[in-house]
Amino acid sequence: MPIAVPAGFRVAGVYCGIKKNAEKHDLALIVSDRPAVAAGVYTRNQVFAASVALNRPRTPGENFRAVVVNSGNANACTGAQGDRDAQRTAALAAAACGARADQALVLSTGIIGEFLPMEKIAAGIEAAAARLGSDEASLVAAARGMLTTDTTHKLAGRTLELDGRRVQITGMAKGAAMIGPRMATMLSVIMTDAALAPADAQRLLGAAVDYSFNCISVDGHMSTNDTVLLVANGAAGGERLAGAALATFAKALDELCVELAKAIPADGEGATHLVSIEVAGCASRQAARQIAKTVAESPLVKTAVAGADPNWGRIVSAAGYAGVPFDPAGVSLWVNGVLLYERGTPTAFDRAAVSCSIRDHRDTAVQLTFSDGTESARFWTTDLTAEYVRLNADYHT
Amino acid sequence: MPIAVPAGFRVAGVYCGIKKNAEKHDLALIVSDRPAVAAGVYTRNQVFAASVALNRPRTPGENFRAVVVNSGNANACTGAQGDRDAQRTAALAAAACGARADQALVLSTGIIGEFLPMEKIAAGIEAAAARLGSDEASLVAAARGMLTTDTTHKLAGRTLELDGRRVQITGMAKGAAMIGPRMATMLSVIMTDAALAPADAQRLLGAAVDYSFNCISVDGHMSTNDTVLLVANGAAGGERLAGAALATFAKALDELCVELAKAIPADGEGATHLVSIEVAGCASRQAARQIAKTVAESPLVKTAVAGADPNWGRIVSAAGYAGVPFDPAGVSLWVNGVLLYERGTPTAFDRAAVSCSIRDHRDTAVQLTFSDGTESARFWTTDLTAEYVRLNADYHT
Repeated sequence: MPIAVPAGFRVAGVYCGIKKNAEKHDLALIVSDRPAVAAGVYTRNQVFAASVALNRPRTPGENFRAVVVNSGNANACTGAQGDRDAQRTAALAAAACGARADQALVLSTGIIGEFLPMEKIAAGIEAAAARLGSDEASLVAAARGMLTTDTTHKLAGRTLELDGRRVQITGMAKGAAMIGPRMATMLSVIMTDAALAPADAQRLLGAAVDYSFNCISVDGHMSTNDTVLLVANGAAGGERLAGAALATFAKALDELCVELAKAIPADGEGATHLVSIEVAGCASRQAARQIAKTVAESPLVKTAVAGADPNWGRIVSAAGYAGVPFDPAGVSLWVNGVLLYERGTPTAFDRAAVSCSIRDHRDTAVQLTFSDGTESARFWTTDLTAEYVRLNADYHT
Repeated sequence: MPIAVPAGFRVAGVYCGIKKNAEKHDLALIVSDRPAVAAGVYTRNQVFAASVALNRPRTPGENFRAVVVNSGNANACTGAQGDRDAQRTAALAAAACGARADQALVLSTGIIGEFLPMEKIAAGIEAAAARLGSDEASLVAAARGMLTTDTTHKLAGRTLELDGRRVQITGMAKGAAMIGPRMATMLSVIMTDAALAPADAQRLLGAAVDYSFNCISVDGHMSTNDTVLLVANGAAGGERLAGAALATFAKALDELCVELAKAIPADGEGATHLVSIEVAGCASRQAARQIAKTVAESPLVKTAVAGADPNWGRIVSAAGYAGVPFDPAGVSLWVNGVLLYERGTPTAFDRAAVSCSIRDHRDTAVQLTFSDGTESARFWTTDLTAEYVRLNADYHT
C-alpha cells in the first residue's frame, strides 16, 4: 500500500549538484501549506553542525512552513560562515513558499569541514519548490534527497482515526553508518496532519526517539548532524490532541519511529545481519539499555554474528562490562530462540543448528534476561563484516 | 641485553596438553624461594573467572610462594566446579614448592565455559616444578606459557639502584584481543626482589595500571579474566622501601607497565598500526582519558588509520561524543606531527603527505588539545582491519 503524504504537506526531491553523481538526489524540500508546530531531537555531540545550531533554539515552536534537507555536505566544522550559510538556506526555503526566514528548519548531511555550495543550494531550492507534490513519487523523491551512502530510501506511514478524523503520520529517514570520506549522520523528518501543542509534540518525539533512534547503532559513532524532526500542521482538523487521542497518536508515533530506526542498521554499511538485542529483568530501563547497547557495540559480538558463531561467552562477557551491577548467576541467554546459557551455566545446545539459524536468516535475535528487576530495553545493531572495514578503510585515501 | 629474573625467583613454562598445539606452552609456574608480598588488579567485569574470585580476597597480602598460570582455558562461567578447580590448582602449585594452599595465586586465560582438565594441570605443575630456573630461557618459557593467540611473548625489565642495593623488576604479559572461539584476556605478572609493604605494593600497582593496562584497547571488550599481579619478595635485601626509594621504584614500575601494556595493542589481532592518542588541555585527567578512550574505540577512526586516511572529521566528532563537555572552538588536532585542525577550523594540510606518513609507519600518533584546562591522558589502540574481522568471524563456525 502506498504511503500517503499527510494533508496540507507538499514535498519534493531534486539533484542540484552537491553530490558528484547526478543520478542521486541531494536536496529535499518539505512544505506545509499552513503554519505547523515543530519539535526536534538533536545530536548530543559537542561538535555539532550549523543546521543543528540553527534548529535547536527554534524547536519546539510553531508557525513553521518549510524544512529543507541537503545531502552531500554536512556544513559541520565550518564556523561562522557555516552558520551564515545555514541561515541563508533557511531563508531561501522559507521564501520559496512565501514565508519568513524564521519559519524554516534546515537539515544537512555529508562531508564535514567544507562550505555549502550556496549557488547550487539556491538553485536546488528553486527547482524543488517548482516540483512540490503530495503524490507518492514526490514523497520518494524527497526521501531520496536526504540519502548519502544508504542503498535504499526509508519511509514509513501510519493512518489513524482520532476523534472521528483521519490522521496521517508519515516519516522519512536516512543513515547507514557514519561513512564515506568524512560523511556522517542519521536524519529523520516526520510529518503529520494532526494538531499538536508544541510542548506535546516535543514530549512525544523525545519519548519515541528514546525507544527508537536512540536504540540503534551501526558503529557507535555519533555524528555531528543527527536530527529527528516532527512537523504537525493540524490540517486533519479539530482541536489539538489531548487525552486518549493523544495517547493513541503517541503509540503510533512510537511504532513509526521504531520502524524507521530499524531500517537504518538494516541498511548498515557492509552488514549481512540486523541484530536485535532484548534485555529484560533489570533494575531500571537505563540499566537494561546500557547492557543492550554494550552488547550491540562489542566488535567481538558483531564479528561472531557475521561468522554465524553462537558465541555466548562474548555476549555474556560484554554484558558484564556494561558498568551495570548484576547477579552473574541470574543471567540467561537465547539466540534465535535457543537457550545457550541458563542462570549462569552453559547449556548443551546444538551448536551447528544455531549456527545455521544465524547464517540462514538476515535477522538475529539475542535475548538476555537477568534476575535483578523487571525493567527491559531493546536495541538494534548490525554485524561487523570485512566489507564494512573495506568500505571505511581500503576504498579511501 | 637479556632481562634478568629478580633474585629469589625461579620460573618455568611447559606444555601440558590444555592447548591442541603441542608446540605451544600452556602452563607457567613462578616460585619465590621466600615468602613474598603480592598485590593484584583485576577485571571489573560482572562475569569474572574462578581465578579472579580466588585471588581477589587474597591480595594485597604476604607469604605468597607461587603463581601458576594456565592458558587455553579461562575457567570462567564454570560455577562451583570452576571454583574448586581453581583452589586445587593453587594447592598443587603451592605443594610443588613446599608451601600451604593459601600461599599461591592462579591466573587462567582461554576458552570460556569449559572445565579445567585437572589431570593435565596437575601433571603440568609437576613438570614445571622440575624445570624451575632463573636463566633467561626459563623466563621466556614462562612468558610463553601464558600466551593464547599472541604472536610473540612480552617481557620487560628494569634494574635500579635503591639505597645502595641493586633491585630488579621484571614483568611478563599476554594479550592480543579477546579472540579465538571464546578466548579472552590480558594477564601480567610482575616480579621484583624489592621489599614492599603490602599496602604500598597495592597502591603502586593500582596507580601504574591506571596509566598503562587501563589505557589500552584492541576491541574494547573487557574480558572475564584480566589480572595484573605484582609479587615482591625482598630478596634484594634491606628494609621495605619508603620515601625517595619507593618513589624511584614507583617510577620504574610505571614505565615497565607502560612498556608491557603497549606491547598488547602492538600485537593486536590483525593490526597494522599501533595508534597512540594523546589528549591535553582538559579540565581533569578523567575527562582527558574518556576522550582518548572514545577516539581509540571508534571503529571509524580505526578503519581510517588502517586505510591511511587522515580523516580529522572522524577524530574530532568521536571526541565530541565522549560525554565530556568542551569548547569546540578550542580543539586542535595533529596526526603524526602535522596540524590538521586548529582551534575549531580545518587547516590546508598536505593530505597525500599525511596519508603516506600513516601508511609507511607502524606507529600512528594522534594528538588532540583542548582549551578547557591543563590535564592530559594517553591511550594506545590498534587500527581495525579486514583481517581482524576475518580472524574473529570468518575463521570460526
